[in-house]
Amino acid sequence: MCSSQELSLRNLLITISYDGSKFHGWQIQHNALTVQEVFQKALYSILNDKPDIKACSRTDSGVHAEMFCISTKISHPIPCIRLKAALNSHLPESVVVLDVKEVNDDFHARYNAKGKRYIYKVLNRCERDPFYTGRALHYRYDIDVELLNKASKSFIGTHDFTSFCTLDKREKGDFIRTIYDFNVKKTGDIVEFTVEGNGFLYNMVRIMVGTLLAINEGKIKPDAIPGIINAEARDMAGPTAPPQGLYLNKVFY
Amino acid sequence: MCSSQELSLRNLLITISYDGSKFHGWQIQHNALTVQEVFQKALYSILNDKPDIKACSRTDSGVHAEMFCISTKISHPIPCIRLKAALNSHLPESVVVLDVKEVNDDFHARYNAKGKRYIYKVLNRCERDPFYTGRALHYRYDIDVELLNKASKSFIGTHDFTSFCTLDKREKGDFIRTIYDFNVKKTGDIVEFTVEGNGFLYNMVRIMVGTLLAINEGKIKPDAIPGIINAEARDMAGPTAPPQGLYLNKVFY
Repeated sequence: MCSSQELSLRNLLITISYDGSKFHGWQIQHNALTVQEVFQKALYSILNDKPDIKACSRTDSGVHAEMFCISTKISHPIPCIRLKAALNSHLPESVVVLDVKEVNDDFHARYNAKGKRYIYKVLNRCERDPFYTGRALHYRYDIDVELLNKASKSFIGTHDFTSFCTLDKREKGDFIRTIYDFNVKKTGDIVEFTVEGNGFLYNMVRIMVGTLLAINEGKIKPDAIPGIINAEARDMAGPTAPPQGLYLNKVFY
Repeated sequence: MCSSQELSLRNLLITISYDGSKFHGWQIQHNALTVQEVFQKALYSILNDKPDIKACSRTDSGVHAEMFCISTKISHPIPCIRLKAALNSHLPESVVVLDVKEVNDDFHARYNAKGKRYIYKVLNRCERDPFYTGRALHYRYDIDVELLNKASKSFIGTHDFTSFCTLDKREKGDFIRTIYDFNVKKTGDIVEFTVEGNGFLYNMVRIMVGTLLAINEGKIKPDAIPGIINAEARDMAGPTAPPQGLYLNKVFY
């Protein structure tokens, strides 16, 4: 049975973007500034209420989001367009609200996500670039884009990705995910690793990229990925690439 | 007559890039951090000497440089490639040395420049973008790219640009410059105003962009630019666009 209070709640889907270099990830932490903290503060100060907020995922410290989704049930009658403007006037420049809309009562930002796209950016030249500080991995060895693009295709499909997950009790044992697409391309000095899938394990994209870079360096063979997947052993894969290159690019509903 | 000391000097051309949002412009100031200050400190600490440095131009507070050139005569025998690495290890992440090479004794970073290319970046959407904070003008009105691109062609040629200069005694009366090319194009949410010329007066690019944006807003007529040039009066042109959108993109020698 619903109380009259619950019946009058509006379920909102709020889409934001943030520069992760300014935060210690999404999720609230003690003694470290997170995106969730500044977002909640802005929301609560506008609504004068503290609704639960559900996020599409967590991002780690230094990881960016070009699109990140939150659902929350509020009783306040503020129109969506005004809530968007109010949030943007309360948020720091490193976070922006792109859209606010009402959704069905049973919508949940995490459970309703059908998939996500991540982009990992690598600055591939000798010198650093002041415009990519904290926004790309600086990698000095020449990247063989054709080789890595071909190798990346082995990730596509439905697999147990235990080898590409930092083991964590939060994952609760289901390591099967489906990767729809993976490609590697270079524009100027920037190499982008783009991956779409129905879901991602903890650190999965960063370990996939780290493995491809290990292939680039000759430390792992170009045709080794199917064997690494089959081994279901984290130590078979390459290192976890650092966070500053990772962007949550899109959430699919 | 040259002393033996002067005869042994090497003339170096040093190419750098910097994120201007971290600095109060290029030129040394009291009580404000400038690019010249951090560059000189790095150079002097490596050479244990204080050579004069000549810059291709000044940039104002908040203006960026994708390519900025400095010439300096030093007596130290350090190889160019090692000086580049040493400077990069001494400089903050907001400044990078892209190249160091020896040039003819009479080369001067400013007087030998045959021309420059500037790009002015505008974020043209309703919401701000955390990844362009301090790196583009945020402009919410729809930009009519075709209209402004066509209007910008009136700048091309050799003209007296008094109307497009913040009057300043440093300019000493020569207001004639040649613009080789001007174009306006949009990629995603970013509109780029790209202009090449043999030289630029103080604030000239920012006033040209401000005038084009005034045309976009209907405050100045699309065909008014030739008349504004002929008037030789600053108050006929549009406002000075803010600094954070401006990038010195290339110096031609």
